[in-house]
Amino acid sequence: MPETAPPSATAAYRPTARTVPTRARERAAYDHELVHAILDEAYICHLGFVRDGAPVVLPTLYGRVGERLYVHGSTGSRPLRMAGGTDSGGTEAPGLAVCLTVTHVDGLVLARSAFHHSINYRSVVVHGIARQVTDAEERRAALDAIVDHVVPGRSYDSRPANDRELAATAVIRLDLDEVSAKVRTGGPNDDPEDAGLPHWAGVVPLARGYGAPVPADDLDPAIDLPDYLSVL
Amino acid sequence: MPETAPPSATAAYRPTARTVPTRARERAAYDHELVHAILDEAYICHLGFVRDGAPVVLPTLYGRVGERLYVHGSTGSRPLRMAGGTDSGGTEAPGLAVCLTVTHVDGLVLARSAFHHSINYRSVVVHGIARQVTDAEERRAALDAIVDHVVPGRSYDSRPANDRELAATAVIRLDLDEVSAKVRTGGPNDDPEDAGLPHWAGVVPLARGYGAPVPADDLDPAIDLPDYLSVL
Repeated sequence: MPETAPPSATAAYRPTARTVPTRARERAAYDHELVHAILDEAYICHLGFVRDGAPVVLPTLYGRVGERLYVHGSTGSRPLRMAGGTDSGGTEAPGLAVCLTVTHVDGLVLARSAFHHSINYRSVVVHGIARQVTDAEERRAALDAIVDHVVPGRSYDSRPANDRELAATAVIRLDLDEVSAKVRTGGPNDDPEDAGLPHWAGVVPLARGYGAPVPADDLDPAIDLPDYLSVL
Repeated sequence: MPETAPPSATAAYRPTARTVPTRARERAAYDHELVHAILDEAYICHLGFVRDGAPVVLPTLYGRVGERLYVHGSTGSRPLRMAGGTDSGGTEAPGLAVCLTVTHVDGLVLARSAFHHSINYRSVVVHGIARQVTDAEERRAALDAIVDHVVPGRSYDSRPANDRELAATAVIRLDLDEVSAKVRTGGPNDDPEDAGLPHWAGVVPLARGYGAPVPADDLDPAIDLPDYLSVL
């Protein structure tokens, strides 16, 4: 049936009023694969919530397990307490409305005109209700995911959380449901009449660089650098 | 008068209920110099605001002029319209409550225990009311600052905005008033009883790397790379 379009190679999030940008719609994307790649490459997200009617945006670590994101923190921290949980009767708390955003800056875009200066970037914005995770198994998996998000495989090479640490740690979950990615790539978009101006134009690429690992002061010198760090 | 403490070498923001963290207070700082340095080194901020009662966090370019931050965007963009301005009678609009956050990730902190994994970072969080800038001179200075924030000095080596571009651009201002920085440095904080565990522990430093500048496809080959890019 050649007249039928093939099914999309990758699943996609359903666009909503909040995830369709009012500007630069051509930069928006909704496919799972791209969203996951952007999320998995970053070290931190910026988590937004509303406190006393005003916005608060805090940087924080996170982890992903399939279509779920996890953020952890002290049980005393404000947003985590606000996210509530499931009460003893099994009723779900209302949760905390959040917006979780991850951004990579990939390049500086220099145009001939000041107006067309820009950056190349990849971002993901997730809207939703975050809720505390109370299930013991899901909490453990979430904490492993957060450690493995910093260094893949590291949860297997560190002491797992003990009961005291688990009791002090709150974990909130945000489902990947209302999600969009936004990507800008390529060179400057100068107006044609500016092409002859005598200013350099182009892109300065940015990339993450890793320095040589610095062992802890008290590290036993017999412990070698693990392979998963030597490949960074 | 040796018994009198010398005046602080640098001015400081006054801590408020919103800028004193509930956790890890020892990481919080309020001095102008540190805050400015963190702000000036980043390329983007994450701007949070409230829309229909829910938080929204968007990455965006910004610029700093002294104790004022500026963000620009299309006059059609939602947050910029929400920020309002000064009406024709000179009455100030209520403005838009925002939280503007900037974060640098400086290192991955690997502890023996999963619980003590962390990152080294420097962040600045600014709370306040953003308002549209209507004064023509301040708008021009703000747009220059945003371009110069991407590449210092670049506003002198590009075509300034023309009237059409200026009319299409909204600029909002956020004063640096309710501001805090938060900084984590150094190695892992493992519990003493974990010191003998056989896991590597330490810090993997992260740093920004610049790639070779890529000229625009239609750049006149006679235009050399400017000095301000060759030093990146």
